Amino acid sequence: MRHRLKDVAERAGVSVKTVSNVVNGYAHVRPDTRARVEEAIAELNYRPNLSARNLRKGRTGVIALAVPELDIPYFAELARHVVTAAAELGWTVLIDQTGGGREQERVVASGITEHLIDGLIFSPLALTAEDLTGLDGTPMVLLGERVDHGPADHVGIDNVGAAREITAHLVGLGRSRIAAIGAQRTAEGASARLRLAGYGAALADAGIAYDERLVAPAAAWHRADGAAAMRALLASGVRPEAVFCFNDTLALGALRALHEAGLRVPEDVAVAGFDDIEDGRFSVPTLSTIAPDKERIARLAVEMLAGRIDGDRTAPARELSAPYRLALRESTLGR
Amino acid sequence: MRHRLKDVAERAGVSVKTVSNVVNGYAHVRPDTRARVEEAIAELNYRPNLSARNLRKGRTGVIALAVPELDIPYFAELARHVVTAAAELGWTVLIDQTGGGREQERVVASGITEHLIDGLIFSPLALTAEDLTGLDGTPMVLLGERVDHGPADHVGIDNVGAAREITAHLVGLGRSRIAAIGAQRTAEGASARLRLAGYGAALADAGIAYDERLVAPAAAWHRADGAAAMRALLASGVRPEAVFCFNDTLALGALRALHEAGLRVPEDVAVAGFDDIEDGRFSVPTLSTIAPDKERIARLAVEMLAGRIDGDRTAPARELSAPYRLALRESTLGR
Repeated sequence: MRHRLKDVAERAGVSVKTVSNVVNGYAHVRPDTRARVEEAIAELNYRPNLSARNLRKGRTGVIALAVPELDIPYFAELARHVVTAAAELGWTVLIDQTGGGREQERVVASGITEHLIDGLIFSPLALTAEDLTGLDGTPMVLLGERVDHGPADHVGIDNVGAAREITAHLVGLGRSRIAAIGAQRTAEGASARLRLAGYGAALADAGIAYDERLVAPAAAWHRADGAAAMRALLASGVRPEAVFCFNDTLALGALRALHEAGLRVPEDVAVAGFDDIEDGRFSVPTLSTIAPDKERIARLAVEMLAGRIDGDRTAPARELSAPYRLALRESTLGR
Repeated sequence: MRHRLKDVAERAGVSVKTVSNVVNGYAHVRPDTRARVEEAIAELNYRPNLSARNLRKGRTGVIALAVPELDIPYFAELARHVVTAAAELGWTVLIDQTGGGREQERVVASGITEHLIDGLIFSPLALTAEDLTGLDGTPMVLLGERVDHGPADHVGIDNVGAAREITAHLVGLGRSRIAAIGAQRTAEGASARLRLAGYGAALADAGIAYDERLVAPAAAWHRADGAAAMRALLASGVRPEAVFCFNDTLALGALRALHEAGLRVPEDVAVAGFDDIEDGRFSVPTLSTIAPDKERIARLAVEMLAGRIDGDRTAPARELSAPYRLALRESTLGR
């Protein structure tokens, strides 16, 4: 006799939903409940019938998430949310780390994995809209700022608006020499350009002149780049009173450089980031930042992708925007 | 005319190896070199002939890496090294985040992805050796402490020895009330048990009595768990002079809790972690830790897997050990 989800739930004394959560590998099941369900699964020799379900629908049951770097915690956190949202719709997610190179991204986009997956959620850095035009085959949803209004469905947030708000917060602290860290002039720097535009807009709103000496470039957005850029700003003699870093890892590096220079945050220099990664909630000081709703971004992307896979593949591409909020902490407010 | 790697290299004025690095998406190519190679690729309309190469060998060209959580930076950093090592052998890596649940891990191990991949590198938390026995099919290499001396090839490090060394370092600072954070009594706690054993051995070496009140459990090993465990230790009245945290994210949480309690690190309490994640090189203070050679672990795993895929699949399982070193920083040495 083949057992069903219901039988496992009865045996374990829990709801069908709970069994489903365990089977799908969700993190938020209490350990003792999980143990009870796993015991019932073992006793009944229950096997989730995913393959049959997918076969019936002509699916592989697998979607891919392609991101530039899992070392950037933003992408690791986003991946967790995508895995959770996809599991609810019965998909396993395989993650592809592209390194952000155009050629590698083009290989991903043109479906090296086409026979493996039902669809692709893709956050490109180097790819252009032209690289994507004319691709057909694997349904795809794009994330991030590199390609919007392109040939595929897209989920993003209002980068200019968010950068403008957090810069306005720094202005509101009474600081006027406000630096920016993370500027990029390359084709890959779409996020950088939008965040710089928001920074510039907030300065203009406040009647503060844009000073190029306060804008520090960063080829990559890791902690080491943030620390180096902050050191360069301090060494240059333009003494900033506040700094807006274009992501949180840059900001954590900047915090470190300020600490080494013996400067107090926020008393001497207020620091803000972008992304709301977990690190910034535990750093000393905790980090003020833009918190994009990553769970919502992931859910919208998975649902849009599911709509393409199961529905109309030829409908015009859609643009969805996810919300964000300011998460203000010690690095700008003090203790 | 179909162009080859050599043609691209000539056009771009670089070595064939450099073109290969760009095509395989390695991070460490200089941006201007990368741009020149990508331009040459575009001009010649060069396409890497991976599929043909793999087809000839009867491969999909894809291996999977299955880890419990990408939010734990250790796994994200390991993933980057696996992607790099695998690319050198012509494999694309898809990453599967299992959540660490036994049922989800069993599905991965029993080859839900068997038709998709040539092989699997797997870091299980909940899986037992019995879950793996009798599996055949997809070649597999195991990482971590959950299943060693099991039915599959395994790469690990000497956890007991490493924990003993870092604890001995804390003893060497003249501290005797040394706490441990991260103990786990569940089946999933294999790493915790080994690290606790090393901690106990170092105390015994130094003639310090083992005091259970100094051993704090942590169900998960995230920053929030480390902060909560540290707060509980401080509230309990056993005033530790040093603390060994079983991973770096726990330690970063403990640093935060000590800061909030107004205690100085390392003057009042010295703190050490395990993993050497990037965060700990930029935290305030920087974190002393065990640095497993993650690059070597990744390379050994990929090479062992390649050996299985291309060679003898029935040879007895092998155990390889990767080196580690102590990375001593401000959280134990001061500035």
